[in-house]
Amino acid sequence: MYQILREHIEKIVPLSDEEFAFVARHFTARKYKKHQFLVQPGDAVKHYYFVVSGLLKLVYTDEDARQHIVSFAMKDWWEGDFYAFYTQTEATLSVECLEDTEVLCFSLQDYRDLCNGLQKMERFFLEKVNFGFLAAQRRIISMLTSSAKERYEQLIKQYPSLVQRVPKSQLAAYLGVSRETLSRLYQ
Amino acid sequence: MYQILREHIEKIVPLSDEEFAFVARHFTARKYKKHQFLVQPGDAVKHYYFVVSGLLKLVYTDEDARQHIVSFAMKDWWEGDFYAFYTQTEATLSVECLEDTEVLCFSLQDYRDLCNGLQKMERFFLEKVNFGFLAAQRRIISMLTSSAKERYEQLIKQYPSLVQRVPKSQLAAYLGVSRETLSRLYQ
Repeated sequence: MYQILREHIEKIVPLSDEEFAFVARHFTARKYKKHQFLVQPGDAVKHYYFVVSGLLKLVYTDEDARQHIVSFAMKDWWEGDFYAFYTQTEATLSVECLEDTEVLCFSLQDYRDLCNGLQKMERFFLEKVNFGFLAAQRRIISMLTSSAKERYEQLIKQYPSLVQRVPKSQLAAYLGVSRETLSRLYQ
Repeated sequence: MYQILREHIEKIVPLSDEEFAFVARHFTARKYKKHQFLVQPGDAVKHYYFVVSGLLKLVYTDEDARQHIVSFAMKDWWEGDFYAFYTQTEATLSVECLEDTEVLCFSLQDYRDLCNGLQKMERFFLEKVNFGFLAAQRRIISMLTSSAKERYEQLIKQYPSLVQRVPKSQLAAYLGVSRETLSRLYQ
């Protein structure tokens, strides 16, 4: 699974074997079962996750126990309660497996050590979060301007393999509509 | 105005006079009048902006010519069509002055040179965009879970000085409701 991480990083910065050995030492491999939680609200958030295989969802659960899906993450994507991780505060979000999932994760100290120890990794994280910021901004624009139907169609176009793997009830919670509304649109 | 930039950067990374002189050489000062555009859809986006004084809005205009406000930026905030800037594609958003505004701006080449020439600046940009990503993620959660009224109240609580300066019609375009809806809520 470390080879997947290496290929992922080397799309942005090339690494020598020695450099990648340094990087790999800061990651820990973990396996989770479908429906298992990696993070739950109130947890001390110790890790941020790179998905090697499987599928995760990042969820905000409101006071009425309704689930709102902030994002999905499949192979090659990063996921976690980044706010709680980065500010070392309690989780307000949950991370749960929609499929059996393998991850490589690091602690905030590992993240700092990677940035301090190898400038290429700071460059890598900067590129990744720049594109993460852009994706979040595009989603905000889409939420401001598009109907649920248009947003569903954008999702199919952008991530066809994701839409096939995610149950409709979960897609509805991502799009911000009820399961019934989504069904009505796609009978 | 360069002193404001220096204080802003030094909240994250301390700089020697020599280092700040290197940083300052990569920025250009510009002044704009209220209602003036810094970026319009279709433009080649050459700059990204740090606001020294005044107030900007980042706008997506839909096919029906309705304005949707992606973000506001006042003193100490960064603004621009980041996607177009970062990928060197044509602007899809506009940046317009809500007040007379002074900025310091840089080109993508300046940004690259800053990151390559001074690791502290790469660290600074990484910290800034991490928090930008978090703010965008919080806004997505708020849009998924909160009513227009709740979002207005969150905005007042988080940015009281912003709400006082921005016309109600513009706040409505940010919250994703009509001017009439916002008025009804706050008669």
